[in-house]
Amino acid sequence: MTDELDFIQSLRAIAAHPAARGLEDDAAVLQVGSETLILTHDTMVEGVHYLPQQNMADVAWKLVSVNLSDLAAKGAQPLGVLYSHMLGANDNQFLDGLREALQAYNVPLLGGDTTAGGPPRAFGLTAIGRATHRPVPSRSGAKPGDGVYLTGPVGAAMLGFETLRDNNDGDTAAYRRPIALLRQGRALAPLVSAIMDVSDGLLLDASRIANASKVTINLDPRAVPIAVPENRRDEALRWGDDYQLLFTAPDAIQWPVPVHQIGKVEECGPSPLLINGAVPQKGDRLGFRHSRSIGTD
Amino acid sequence: MTDELDFIQSLRAIAAHPAARGLEDDAAVLQVGSETLILTHDTMVEGVHYLPQQNMADVAWKLVSVNLSDLAAKGAQPLGVLYSHMLGANDNQFLDGLREALQAYNVPLLGGDTTAGGPPRAFGLTAIGRATHRPVPSRSGAKPGDGVYLTGPVGAAMLGFETLRDNNDGDTAAYRRPIALLRQGRALAPLVSAIMDVSDGLLLDASRIANASKVTINLDPRAVPIAVPENRRDEALRWGDDYQLLFTAPDAIQWPVPVHQIGKVEECGPSPLLINGAVPQKGDRLGFRHSRSIGTD
Repeated sequence: MTDELDFIQSLRAIAAHPAARGLEDDAAVLQVGSETLILTHDTMVEGVHYLPQQNMADVAWKLVSVNLSDLAAKGAQPLGVLYSHMLGANDNQFLDGLREALQAYNVPLLGGDTTAGGPPRAFGLTAIGRATHRPVPSRSGAKPGDGVYLTGPVGAAMLGFETLRDNNDGDTAAYRRPIALLRQGRALAPLVSAIMDVSDGLLLDASRIANASKVTINLDPRAVPIAVPENRRDEALRWGDDYQLLFTAPDAIQWPVPVHQIGKVEECGPSPLLINGAVPQKGDRLGFRHSRSIGTD
Repeated sequence: MTDELDFIQSLRAIAAHPAARGLEDDAAVLQVGSETLILTHDTMVEGVHYLPQQNMADVAWKLVSVNLSDLAAKGAQPLGVLYSHMLGANDNQFLDGLREALQAYNVPLLGGDTTAGGPPRAFGLTAIGRATHRPVPSRSGAKPGDGVYLTGPVGAAMLGFETLRDNNDGDTAAYRRPIALLRQGRALAPLVSAIMDVSDGLLLDASRIANASKVTINLDPRAVPIAVPENRRDEALRWGDDYQLLFTAPDAIQWPVPVHQIGKVEECGPSPLLINGAVPQKGDRLGFRHSRSIGTD
């Protein structure tokens, strides 16, 4: 199989239009007349992005949420979704979850298609939104001196995943039914210098903002709010799927939503990421490419 | 597995927003400020929509074309595409075809995602366009007295498919590299009463316009231009994949592009489709659901 990062490099060469933002952002930003559209597409594959034993209503919910989370990171108002459904077991359960999610977010289903195929089954969803603030924030605007902030704790999805995988008792909602922070994204968009949603692990995603912005981010790991026991802090910082918003902004702003400062932006140094001022150890796994979160990595 | 038509019925209940057009049109039509967006998503699955032995550059080309063909049927100008790629063999070949198609149509790649998974592999593409004529034509405007027209011959894709499947010598381009008739769609949009692209078979698609418009379409099968020997006319009318535009319009219009009259729209009778004035025989297969074109049906 092709190496995914090589492949994405080749794709970038094709995606030369400025609206694509070099495929380095959470979403495309397309000017159409006087409107600014935000567009994103994410796919969930059986055994890769969800456990085969999962309730299909939860899979549908998550498919909606992960895409709307990309809109949240742009401060966008969702206009609708199109989705692609591969027919199989428990399709009505899937539809129940889709309906619940679209109702909860008040987002219309605009279209899509159904296909045969699988296993593994694949479900794709495209979310379309409109910018509520321009310029639309990106990953690339962090400036030395900015603070680094997070909207809430990480780690809950990790615990939920383990509970589900091991068939244990416990709360699994954070993993099964993540929430796209649309309201927070809209409130923050005018204030931030860079922003993204944390899908692949806080440390990895922080290093992405740093790389895109050509700065170094120095994180204080003890300042990161976590939803797990203290002895699992390091893992929680490297797991993903919590969909908190991670952003940078000048200090001393009055925040319209609860945020936690977890670090500082510094001049670009030899490492995009510092943890308590130290370069991460070679081989330290900062997170994971979301597309390989389960089963294949 | 869920029955596909039952499933689509359930989906329609969710897609209540007028922009979804009841999931009965080629694309969604979404008003955003002063702009009218046209949105469509189609997926291609290995062994379902393409032969496993096919060149992946052709698969990529077709993925672009089938989606842009839906925009063509709305008279839309494409603004960009997002696509979902499942990594596997010959990915660079796939990218070559994607690049060629996007260059040929002059459409930017805006975003998308890559995943692991498969076989079978699945590739999804969302195409976004803007309306060039409003109201945006649909399948539902055909009126008794209108003529029924087709932009060009059907059957070439059928021959190409057979040649490819049987490893014979012969021209397979019509099946491998269909062309979305964007220019024709834009020229026709202001003139038609109903329009769609012929993806699933001329007779089936004609009956869809008739059903959506609550009329009867009376086709003259001898008037249909075909790209196959005469003894295969009946099959050519039932095969799909040629992506000609099928439309209805008042008579005696000056056509901006070549068209062929192939029938008349009549008052709604007991059958949506008549062939030479006769109701199709019970069990006559008018076409196929495109998603089941190969391997599973």
